[in-house]
Amino acid sequence: MSYYSYLECSKCGKKYSKDEPHNLCECGGPLLVRYDFDEIKKNVDKNIFKTRKKGLFRFKELLPIDDENNIVTLGEGDTPITEARTLGRRIGFENLYIKDEGLNPTGTFKARGAAVGVSKAKELGIKTIAMPTAGNAGGAWSAYSAKAGIKLVVAMPQDAPELAKKEAYIYGAKTYLVKGLISDAGKIISRGVKKHGWFDAATLKEPYRIEGKKTMGIEIAEYFDWEFPDAILYPTGGGVGIIGIWKAFNELRQLGWIKDKIPKLISVQAEGCNPIVKAFNKKKDVSEFCSGANTIAGGIRVPKALGDFIVLDAIKKSGGTAVQVKDSEILDSINLIARTEGLFICPEGAALVAAVEKLRKSNFLKSNEKIVLLNTGSGLKYPNLVSEKLPVIEIDNDI
Amino acid sequence: MSYYSYLECSKCGKKYSKDEPHNLCECGGPLLVRYDFDEIKKNVDKNIFKTRKKGLFRFKELLPIDDENNIVTLGEGDTPITEARTLGRRIGFENLYIKDEGLNPTGTFKARGAAVGVSKAKELGIKTIAMPTAGNAGGAWSAYSAKAGIKLVVAMPQDAPELAKKEAYIYGAKTYLVKGLISDAGKIISRGVKKHGWFDAATLKEPYRIEGKKTMGIEIAEYFDWEFPDAILYPTGGGVGIIGIWKAFNELRQLGWIKDKIPKLISVQAEGCNPIVKAFNKKKDVSEFCSGANTIAGGIRVPKALGDFIVLDAIKKSGGTAVQVKDSEILDSINLIARTEGLFICPEGAALVAAVEKLRKSNFLKSNEKIVLLNTGSGLKYPNLVSEKLPVIEIDNDI
Repeated sequence: MSYYSYLECSKCGKKYSKDEPHNLCECGGPLLVRYDFDEIKKNVDKNIFKTRKKGLFRFKELLPIDDENNIVTLGEGDTPITEARTLGRRIGFENLYIKDEGLNPTGTFKARGAAVGVSKAKELGIKTIAMPTAGNAGGAWSAYSAKAGIKLVVAMPQDAPELAKKEAYIYGAKTYLVKGLISDAGKIISRGVKKHGWFDAATLKEPYRIEGKKTMGIEIAEYFDWEFPDAILYPTGGGVGIIGIWKAFNELRQLGWIKDKIPKLISVQAEGCNPIVKAFNKKKDVSEFCSGANTIAGGIRVPKALGDFIVLDAIKKSGGTAVQVKDSEILDSINLIARTEGLFICPEGAALVAAVEKLRKSNFLKSNEKIVLLNTGSGLKYPNLVSEKLPVIEIDNDI
Repeated sequence: MSYYSYLECSKCGKKYSKDEPHNLCECGGPLLVRYDFDEIKKNVDKNIFKTRKKGLFRFKELLPIDDENNIVTLGEGDTPITEARTLGRRIGFENLYIKDEGLNPTGTFKARGAAVGVSKAKELGIKTIAMPTAGNAGGAWSAYSAKAGIKLVVAMPQDAPELAKKEAYIYGAKTYLVKGLISDAGKIISRGVKKHGWFDAATLKEPYRIEGKKTMGIEIAEYFDWEFPDAILYPTGGGVGIIGIWKAFNELRQLGWIKDKIPKLISVQAEGCNPIVKAFNKKKDVSEFCSGANTIAGGIRVPKALGDFIVLDAIKKSGGTAVQVKDSEILDSINLIARTEGLFICPEGAALVAAVEKLRKSNFLKSNEKIVLLNTGSGLKYPNLVSEKLPVIEIDNDI
């Protein structure tokens, strides 16, 4: 079913066998999954995917799971793309779309990475996975690990969102709250991994979650009849989503399955944590550590991403850009998109709404371009960002 | 596209035209949508549904929307059905499945009713909808009304779940918190409807949400290759879900699209609010008002359902039963299914896990029967039911 061939270092090109667990390359570069495209071209018709049961594993030929029995699924993927007509009209776009990753298991796009990552861990015979998390990835990997019967050790900052803690707890992950930042949690996990022989599934140290996330790109291409839209906006923290979509674009192009248009990939960050925006503006190939990182959008509060060089390369090669928005704009956008489109989205997703409006005003994006905002999660996971003020009435009051 | 013919009273059989808004029949009975089955048989092949874009509107011939332009969608329906092998083994079933309605927009099955109800309201030219709600229906109808540009007035008990209040608020519904029960909210809405000429969308006073919910039944039949499973367990509050599934079964049977097996429909309630269980055990055709109704599962805290007679009829005719569970069993089940199947489900759904175990022990259900638990919503909407206790560590601690 899978045409997975080998792992390849994204920095030095060194190859690794697919049949045992790997983390980073010797050189420190993240490893990427490579497929046998000649065989896929020969044997796979892209129209077959539509006929299969919904969910991201319908793209199994382009995923790294060799034996279907190892698939661990909770029904992730195939999230809806809806046209945002009212919002589009309001901010100046005729063809604005939102892909809502909030309808994944555990309420975020992290479920895609976890589905493929945990499935592959099962296939490789891994017994215990360990990872640091800001919150949502921990929730997702906890759920899939529970389903797979694999042990999971998670460390997250003590101030992580309440719901992320509750998720890790209820799914039975061994969870530690760290008096520090996610980088501190990462160091604790690294020491634990060395001491106990656990598998380290930190972002990009684990090569398979990218494959799960790239299915967002395949779904977008398929939705628009195998053509990418003019632009895709993505909130950028660790950057795996944008790397995954760029990987999807390049794989589909290599297979000759998509029309020629290159989608502008647009990275959106918060003013309080903007390493990619700064690096892009300065035309740098890598980002600098953003000290004092601070934003309400916890998923993009990543001071320095391991894969920053891949993200910056994708933005540049696709003719995209990087945009930053204020936290106040994020909050306003949560309200705007709820009232115009009936979507209660996460702050990371709301940042895109503010960003796309800026890009219209600056004329970087034209009103008739086909644009997809990739909302990464449900607003239900961020109840604290909504302060409702509602009238209380007596039972004999009229309204 | 639609083969909708007319509305028919579920009590007296009186017919109503489909072209203007209706609530209850003159006799007080809820109205049901009827289709032209002869024409559907002639013109529609059931295998066509699979080829369409996912979501419940792919069953458009069996839904009451005449003009596709009136469809208001947020990507509802086509929720995953997953096999619960670990849980099944634990409690004695070989073929246990869970359909997870938590992956709908707004996190519950209420999105299905709202999608069809609001679409039809748009088609009928309704400007303002009003409804009482315990919480989740208000959230769902608020989202779809926002997308449709229809005004919504909602009244909910002051002690409704926080997230339901936040949803109604953020989607811009005119929301009142009532110092009383949902029945008090209902009276306030009724008076408002009379005074202002709003459309009353209270449960079963509005004929179209059943149509949305019946798509759960169609999806189940399609999943099992057009055969219903041996039993479907459903948490029963207002009863619209079970009525919808029973309606789906009967319509599919009338169309000759399904194999003969009749699914046992099993209604699950909480000990603290069990009107259907009591009526079923006493072989009554209607339920009695359950005073002092009390359970942590707010969605099934309905003391007397308007459609109780249809629910009881469906249970009886299908060879099903009605089961009650304790709140403590619901809480235990939330944990059990999270740790075995990676699903964080709502208390109403968790009641099914406790109930199906009882039915195995009593031998009402056999170990080899094919059983579907219909989880109605995401646990993310009930954060208060999880009290996590997690160790806090310093950054130089080892784990």
